[in-house]
Amino acid sequence: MNLRRLFRPECIAVIGASRTEGKLGYEAMANAVAFDGPVYPVNPSAEGSVLGEPSEASVTDIDERVDLALLAVPAPVVPEVLAECGEANVGGAIIYSGGFAEAGEDGKALQTEVTEVADKYGIALLGPNTSGFVAPAQNLFTSFAGGVESIEPGGVTILAQSGGVAHQLAFSAHREGRGISTMVGLGNRANVGFEETVRYFDDDPQTDAIVLHVEGTDTGRALVETCCDADTPVAAYKVGKADVGDFAESHTGALTGDHDLYTAGFAQYGVSTVDSTTELLDAGVALADAPSPDGPNVGVVTAQAGPGIAITDRLKAADAEFPTLTDETQEAVEEILPGMTYSANPVDTGRPMPEFGDVVAAVARDENVDVVMVYELYERALGYPTEGLEGLVDEVDKPIVFATGGPDAVLADELAGLESLDIPTFRTPERGADAVAALVQDALRNADPDAAEAEEVSR
Amino acid sequence: MNLRRLFRPECIAVIGASRTEGKLGYEAMANAVAFDGPVYPVNPSAEGSVLGEPSEASVTDIDERVDLALLAVPAPVVPEVLAECGEANVGGAIIYSGGFAEAGEDGKALQTEVTEVADKYGIALLGPNTSGFVAPAQNLFTSFAGGVESIEPGGVTILAQSGGVAHQLAFSAHREGRGISTMVGLGNRANVGFEETVRYFDDDPQTDAIVLHVEGTDTGRALVETCCDADTPVAAYKVGKADVGDFAESHTGALTGDHDLYTAGFAQYGVSTVDSTTELLDAGVALADAPSPDGPNVGVVTAQAGPGIAITDRLKAADAEFPTLTDETQEAVEEILPGMTYSANPVDTGRPMPEFGDVVAAVARDENVDVVMVYELYERALGYPTEGLEGLVDEVDKPIVFATGGPDAVLADELAGLESLDIPTFRTPERGADAVAALVQDALRNADPDAAEAEEVSR
Repeated sequence: MNLRRLFRPECIAVIGASRTEGKLGYEAMANAVAFDGPVYPVNPSAEGSVLGEPSEASVTDIDERVDLALLAVPAPVVPEVLAECGEANVGGAIIYSGGFAEAGEDGKALQTEVTEVADKYGIALLGPNTSGFVAPAQNLFTSFAGGVESIEPGGVTILAQSGGVAHQLAFSAHREGRGISTMVGLGNRANVGFEETVRYFDDDPQTDAIVLHVEGTDTGRALVETCCDADTPVAAYKVGKADVGDFAESHTGALTGDHDLYTAGFAQYGVSTVDSTTELLDAGVALADAPSPDGPNVGVVTAQAGPGIAITDRLKAADAEFPTLTDETQEAVEEILPGMTYSANPVDTGRPMPEFGDVVAAVARDENVDVVMVYELYERALGYPTEGLEGLVDEVDKPIVFATGGPDAVLADELAGLESLDIPTFRTPERGADAVAALVQDALRNADPDAAEAEEVSR
Repeated sequence: MNLRRLFRPECIAVIGASRTEGKLGYEAMANAVAFDGPVYPVNPSAEGSVLGEPSEASVTDIDERVDLALLAVPAPVVPEVLAECGEANVGGAIIYSGGFAEAGEDGKALQTEVTEVADKYGIALLGPNTSGFVAPAQNLFTSFAGGVESIEPGGVTILAQSGGVAHQLAFSAHREGRGISTMVGLGNRANVGFEETVRYFDDDPQTDAIVLHVEGTDTGRALVETCCDADTPVAAYKVGKADVGDFAESHTGALTGDHDLYTAGFAQYGVSTVDSTTELLDAGVALADAPSPDGPNVGVVTAQAGPGIAITDRLKAADAEFPTLTDETQEAVEEILPGMTYSANPVDTGRPMPEFGDVVAAVARDENVDVVMVYELYERALGYPTEGLEGLVDEVDKPIVFATGGPDAVLADELAGLESLDIPTFRTPERGADAVAALVQDALRNADPDAAEAEEVSR
């Protein structure tokens, strides 16, 4: 299944385009017209034009080759409309409507019929029962939700089983000043599912990390193995710790399966697993923006003990290692700040200070340390050690993650400086720690596979 | 110990006030001068004035009665300075400097000496080794951190063992558009600790909920019992799941103790326990702004299945109950929306719709439901059912919590409307669910104590 015409179309048709605000066919068209290429509304009953574009009666009437068709039509007519798309040589289609595999035996039969049509014509089918996808760098918004055009481009690709969760993630990213590469709601996954999209976006030059929202899939092992084979780092949010099976099946027609089996499977192959949409985004940001660590050894530097303790607590619970710093590092730190509050690992400077950046650099250069986690509450007289950290990430080729709190009005600018040095920043100690935990899990992916296997056998 | 002159002073002295920016005595003075009452800088070596206020050589030279003294002086001179405060009839003092119980045997001895002086004169002592407190409604900022004057008044009081965590919490609240009543960093708790402050703020008319950050205390049982006796709802973030004991002891001189014992003790008395600063604030907002629920029975209404499943999953894992809705409610829901996607509990409407508020109201009126959790991703054509929910919280006297995602530019105004109806709002499904979990825990506090005891015995 080639997904290129689905995710990088040059020409789009919106089938069921409507002139009535609030209707799905209107909202989908309203978002689609932002696209740089041609966007054709199709509606047998819509004479004239929709949102300024002249309307066609059928996709087969369009002179140009349509790559992607958005189907805003009721479930029963989907097989017929999709067959027309096939005749018109459409490469990809999105089916928004529900009433398929999630809706009992009749729905399952309808989905089988639709999938057969798509397979016959080689159409990559997103959905049914999805809210589409968004690719801001292409001005491509194939969603019917309002406000998606505000989402900015970035390096994280979101692949969510639920369109609602996909949008939640994309809007949350935007709220925090992060962009996304592509956001996809998979829905019922007729012939485009997790494995196909993970493989496609693994090869996408605009994707630096992939984050997954998984309710359940019949191909759990294949998904885990596909993530393992990917060169791009992957983090996964598997819903369904508790028993939500019947509600979930009514959603996208999939049972949630055994939560522990999934997370163990992911973890075994270095796919970072998380427990919320917030953690999933933060893991994506860290994986996309920082280098991959070589191991699980974290060096913590904090300017305030309390948040440093919360971070250390959380990282220890996530099985991160806290190596002893080398004698060389301990001497360097002691020289910078004699009688520092706590100079083991974590290193606690007690308060921010002009030499804070030097302490961070000394810990980052320590050969026992794979990842550096920094916390510094903002103080107006000192700001952040941005200048002193310039070039450090490249020099040590290790992730440096920065967590902080402080008055919002000044933080945005200050933190942008750190982010420009490939130092991901987070606004609470725990969110920083969770991002580092994702990096620590990711380190396994790069570890010697024989060693990992040996460890597994010895358990 | 009377804490009123500490937390509601009419006259303040800053001892060790400095004219050098970046120095603690400057930063503390710079924040203190926002206070509506008189603020006297005291410094034997500072002739003239500090920040426009004429300087005194000693606190005993001030003509007016000083309620609160901020001590920005090195640890060794604290006993002498504090005795002067006693002679001047000062009622409360804050000691910023470290080098006390957290710093070995000499420090412990110094703290004992200081505590004896304070007790002798009846001075309520915040610290040592703290960053002070902030009470925005009084324009009272006794912290040396920059930017605290931006923090707005609200109903949640923060009592944190760590000053750094206290500030992190207050700045995070501000970032999310929430105010706070008082934020206190307790530090080494010489003679003002958790129990004293919980009791004081329980009686504070400006405090609607209390949130605690606890590293460790020797009086764990007394703390739990004090929280249990409070009329004000309390949530607690106990750090120290993993072994961080030595680092924590170096911080405020307290070991972290057994994490499970604390959380079990809190939970037994209906003190909501959480696992991060974000959850702690969200719990505080829900406890402060919503009515206390009568029981743990949650009714979920969602406009998008995926986030609804994530919410249900999380609440089930937190031991919330999901009662069957009454026949009456099910009929009402079915009448509003025949063939709704999922009409059990959770109720899933599939998409937002004009009747969404009616569905929420029907579930809120269900006698089997104690708390209502709503999720609705924003859609521009529909907005939120704010008008339809007017008066509902008062009518049913149950908490209604609203979680959502969407374009930030429009959400702030939309959600303010819901908040004005005493419906706390949260920006991710999991944060909404965690807030409801805190309310469910709080329901125990109001439950029949005999029933709770019987349940405990039967375990």
